[in-house]
Amino acid sequence: MLVVQMEGSCGGLDVARVCDALERQGRSARVVPWQGGFCVVAQGGREGAGALASCGGVRRVTGTTCSFPLASREVFPGTTSVELAPGVVLGDGSLTVMAGPCAVESREQMLRTARGVKASGARALRGGAFKPRSNPYAFQGLGSEGIALLMEARRATGLPVVTEVMAPEDVEWLAPHVDVLQVGTRNMQNYSLLKALGSVDRPVLLKRGMAATVDEWLQAAEYILAGGNQRVVLCERGIRSFDRSTRNTLDLSVVPLVKSLSHLPVVVDPSHATGRRELVAPMSLAAVAAGADGLILEVHARPEEALCDGPQSLDLDQFDALMKALSRLHGALGEEEDPCLRVAR
Amino acid sequence: MLVVQMEGSCGGLDVARVCDALERQGRSARVVPWQGGFCVVAQGGREGAGALASCGGVRRVTGTTCSFPLASREVFPGTTSVELAPGVVLGDGSLTVMAGPCAVESREQMLRTARGVKASGARALRGGAFKPRSNPYAFQGLGSEGIALLMEARRATGLPVVTEVMAPEDVEWLAPHVDVLQVGTRNMQNYSLLKALGSVDRPVLLKRGMAATVDEWLQAAEYILAGGNQRVVLCERGIRSFDRSTRNTLDLSVVPLVKSLSHLPVVVDPSHATGRRELVAPMSLAAVAAGADGLILEVHARPEEALCDGPQSLDLDQFDALMKALSRLHGALGEEEDPCLRVAR
Amino acid sequence: MLVVQMEGSCGGLDVARVCDALERQGRSARVVPWQGGFCVVAQGGREGAGALASCGGVRRVTGTTCSFPLASREVFPGTTSVELAPGVVLGDGSLTVMAGPCAVESREQMLRTARGVKASGARALRGGAFKPRSNPYAFQGLGSEGIALLMEARRATGLPVVTEVMAPEDVEWLAPHVDVLQVGTRNMQNYSLLKALGSVDRPVLLKRGMAATVDEWLQAAEYILAGGNQRVVLCERGIRSFDRSTRNTLDLSVVPLVKSLSHLPVVVDPSHATGRRELVAPMSLAAVAAGADGLILEVHARPEEALCDGPQSLDLDQFDALMKALSRLHGALGEEEDPCLRVAR
Amino acid sequence: MLVVQMEGSCGGLDVARVCDALERQGRSARVVPWQGGFCVVAQGGREGAGALASCGGVRRVTGTTCSFPLASREVFPGTTSVELAPGVVLGDGSLTVMAGPCAVESREQMLRTARGVKASGARALRGGAFKPRSNPYAFQGLGSEGIALLMEARRATGLPVVTEVMAPEDVEWLAPHVDVLQVGTRNMQNYSLLKALGSVDRPVLLKRGMAATVDEWLQAAEYILAGGNQRVVLCERGIRSFDRSTRNTLDLSVVPLVKSLSHLPVVVDPSHATGRRELVAPMSLAAVAAGADGLILEVHARPEEALCDGPQSLDLDQFDALMKALSRLHGALGEEEDPCLRVAR
Repeated sequence: MLVVQMEGSCGGLDVARVCDALERQGRSARVVPWQGGFCVVAQGGREGAGALASCGGVRRVTGTTCSFPLASREVFPGTTSVELAPGVVLGDGSLTVMAGPCAVESREQMLRTARGVKASGARALRGGAFKPRSNPYAFQGLGSEGIALLMEARRATGLPVVTEVMAPEDVEWLAPHVDVLQVGTRNMQNYSLLKALGSVDRPVLLKRGMAATVDEWLQAAEYILAGGNQRVVLCERGIRSFDRSTRNTLDLSVVPLVKSLSHLPVVVDPSHATGRRELVAPMSLAAVAAGADGLILEVHARPEEALCDGPQSLDLDQFDALMKALSRLHGALGEEEDPCLRVAR
Repeated sequence: MLVVQMEGSCGGLDVARVCDALERQGRSARVVPWQGGFCVVAQGGREGAGALASCGGVRRVTGTTCSFPLASREVFPGTTSVELAPGVVLGDGSLTVMAGPCAVESREQMLRTARGVKASGARALRGGAFKPRSNPYAFQGLGSEGIALLMEARRATGLPVVTEVMAPEDVEWLAPHVDVLQVGTRNMQNYSLLKALGSVDRPVLLKRGMAATVDEWLQAAEYILAGGNQRVVLCERGIRSFDRSTRNTLDLSVVPLVKSLSHLPVVVDPSHATGRRELVAPMSLAAVAAGADGLILEVHARPEEALCDGPQSLDLDQFDALMKALSRLHGALGEEEDPCLRVAR
Repeated sequence: MLVVQMEGSCGGLDVARVCDALERQGRSARVVPWQGGFCVVAQGGREGAGALASCGGVRRVTGTTCSFPLASREVFPGTTSVELAPGVVLGDGSLTVMAGPCAVESREQMLRTARGVKASGARALRGGAFKPRSNPYAFQGLGSEGIALLMEARRATGLPVVTEVMAPEDVEWLAPHVDVLQVGTRNMQNYSLLKALGSVDRPVLLKRGMAATVDEWLQAAEYILAGGNQRVVLCERGIRSFDRSTRNTLDLSVVPLVKSLSHLPVVVDPSHATGRRELVAPMSLAAVAAGADGLILEVHARPEEALCDGPQSLDLDQFDALMKALSRLHGALGEEEDPCLRVAR
Repeated sequence: MLVVQMEGSCGGLDVARVCDALERQGRSARVVPWQGGFCVVAQGGREGAGALASCGGVRRVTGTTCSFPLASREVFPGTTSVELAPGVVLGDGSLTVMAGPCAVESREQMLRTARGVKASGARALRGGAFKPRSNPYAFQGLGSEGIALLMEARRATGLPVVTEVMAPEDVEWLAPHVDVLQVGTRNMQNYSLLKALGSVDRPVLLKRGMAATVDEWLQAAEYILAGGNQRVVLCERGIRSFDRSTRNTLDLSVVPLVKSLSHLPVVVDPSHATGRRELVAPMSLAAVAAGADGLILEVHARPEEALCDGPQSLDLDQFDALMKALSRLHGALGEEEDPCLRVAR
């Protein structure tokens, strides 16, 4: 593949000429809004890169065999920071914990949980209004009413809000009301949804599919990036393996692996991964030690009353204790420059 | 769960009274159009079934712990036949082979392949106009133009047409133009799509997700059934395992297993399962020996020119030879009453 | 790798000269008794093959990148037939069914089951005297007493006997008493055991490890072949996947795949693969349709009294019905020259 | 199951009476040397426990449904510390790092690596003399010559030595020469080997099988414990999943899970798990954060010359940097009482 990065100052005519040149080489080209300007991505080998480099407005031409060029560190060295809200940034070396209930259930539950996690240091509030459930008769979330409750909790606490979107037709109306749109594990390869998210002005938290390879996961991110939305956060949440003694198998090695392959930030969801409250704290610590930029945790003011995923939810006291331990750990690791890669590279 | 089957002759008031009675028991009830009448499905235990049985218009009340009551053989003994087109029936003991290219590529390709597979005995034509591809830059199908070519191939051959639908918003406009709507493996738990397919008047071919358990697969079918669409065909297409010497791992044991759990017909896709042309014929024979009601096969008039999945496509001669072998095999098996279960049950 | 096949008439000096020549090329060489003569296997690339071909006593020199040269069809085209006993041959196009209980339990059980399976057409008797059990407190088999009962059943029926060996130190004393030595799935990579089996004059039935790739399985066979024992039969018995609705996932695609990669015969064990009696018959038929050379089935005169694996054991009537169905199926398939590969290659 | 713990002062007659009482209850009993005295383990339910409690010399009778009673925390609350050598203890809250090359290759390599890892703080030396290799023609280790080199390295550094044993017949002669016997992943269910290790006076490092569930792994440990050897250390080294972007999938959640189920110490092998040098450091940190009692790491003085697993071996400088980071991390975690379970239980 070829990735042609255009100068920020280039004009539409420059982009058009690059596309023409690529088409004369027999390649189809896609123009992607990128970092305030444009990139042109074209399939095929590296040959012909030289001819393009001399076109007007071209900053850099990179050939790659990578199947996710826009997401790759090979083409875009460095690190992408994603701002979820003013001052809440994933990928800048800080540790960002997102917390809240699996599902929005009631006003009282949301406000109480939101205030609790905020007090303990959470930087964002999670909560599902649209719930993908394996069974059609199970509780499917409060829908738009849940969104209203999330908005109220945001007003009350100032925490930005992360919530799942399941259908392409919901993306446009939902985006203005929430801060981060989450793609669930079952929808990682729902390409209609990914395309819709490519053209929206909101960060996207992309959970890994439960049987997705690292390559497929990064190609799913590429769908969103190729639509022009650069604010993608990757989330490891456990894969499906033969062993069911935990709900899923948390694949922490992908944290340093993905960070070496991609410039995008990576967070970990130990709640869905393990499915067991007592494993959430140790695996949260492990995720941070492995280099994760953040965590997304299920916390419920009264886990025993949760309509969904109670057994894997921390209560507010457990969350508070965990946050203190994470802070100590992150401090100890922070003495290095690059917590993930500092030793062996 | 309780499944309340209503008499065909019952009125709306009878249904309303059943729902009331369930709500008084503290259960939420869902009314499902079913076999020309109605079913009411309610969560919870079996208690209270007696009270309902005496309500007016109630034919039968069944309690079950099954998570897919409408799809289950436990609640609905017997076998569901799904008619794809007049005279083309899945689940009646015949063997129905659906064949065609992975993707619709051109008029000449479609017509030539369609005529070829028809001549060898295929009963339906497959072809993808909307292609879910892991990579955003890969060929994504001809879209509505592909649908037009499928319609032309149907007119030319009389074969009913099977094609994939990827987005909920495409279901309504696509349904009138094709005979069977296919849900791909990546979308098996795309619940927005499943719900849209629940209310459409077309059979649905539901491929198993690549990491879906049998239980999850049947619950995905339940989403469509619970919307009122009873014409669901299950398709095993290989699961993802540790061994990548074949593209996927064809899990043929689910054919007799699913047929013992569910009344729905089951077909097998050995092309995507194996990913290798030379394995398609033996695994087609094996699928039929295991009791499959049909096969869906990738056939291309010129596999070496295919834009997608050429290595797993049979050419027309190979397909013709396979059809002859299948016919002999099905004949030999057909001397039993129930090819799948005849021996051991 | 280089495989140097020597003439049957070659002398020890010829072999020594080949080894010298290889060592001068910097390769380590291993001499393998092979087809009444010798092969020399050496690591490294194909270069230098020409020099060896002109050595005295050399019939053929083959370079290969295959990791299992002696097991490969690439180096040894054709098909290996393995004779279990006079007239009982795996790999000659016939269908050989081995049947019997999971574990040898008593004299009466063995004799009754052996006579039953013989009457229905089984060609060999299976039965475990040494049982590998996950739990140390579970029944571990009757040991040498079980071997004595197997020998008695063989005398009574004339059926050759297949039994598992678990420890290298048991190979030598056990071999004279039984006809086929079985390596269980947990021991597929027990290299001490494989090496011991390489030098014994008995066929070996090598079950696939539950997480073994096809390549690893064939390399395990290569351990036995490289010891000089050419009579290896491969047995697919289900792999471990995420789905536990069957005991294991029967990976039937490996039947035609392995037959295309290797000249060794392949049999299938649908009893351990599925773990459910009602799935054994359909999967037996499917295995034969996929091209298996034989089956190994658990049959018990009284499955409800079995000490081990009762739920997956057929009773004698079920076995008899299955044998009749298998016979019809094999007849229908047999009209082709090569039931496995006839269509697509 | 019933576990009858006998008083340390009990006599043989007391044990015999307990066994008699169990047999009268129709249970088979196994006497296990345990903590300087004896345990009697019997299959079956909890009934009859009262009668046993009043037998002479009985300290405690525990009924359990656990399949690994001797390994379980349910029957034996608390924590087992395993002393590898004087002052080198796994399971006492300290962090024990075992390091060294995959294979013993030469005197110079062993001495240089041993001195290097000792200088950086390793507490034990690993090195393979008997190497289980998938391919029969690959380097299989130096065998007894390698053991001699390990013994020399021990004399030179004072580090206790960990090495793999592959065959039951090697256990007896090997045990006196080394400090810890390792069971490799392919042999986790080699029951002949486990039984041989049950009666040897050496700690055993039991690697998890690559497709072993947690339950199977702990039952494998139970084989060794039931033979009377209480010094078992569990080692997670990655499982086999669908994703091959790392060599195996490191399943770190089992660290806190196993520690909640069992009193045995748990260590982690991130070298074999990831197969990539650059992932070893972050996953070592993550393992310790998850609560591991130790690590076993591949370190080679010259990784680029390693005969085996070079790409996953750290060099001495990388190992030194990692040890410093581990020390800081363990210090930060050590402020809690129980690094693994402190937060959520």
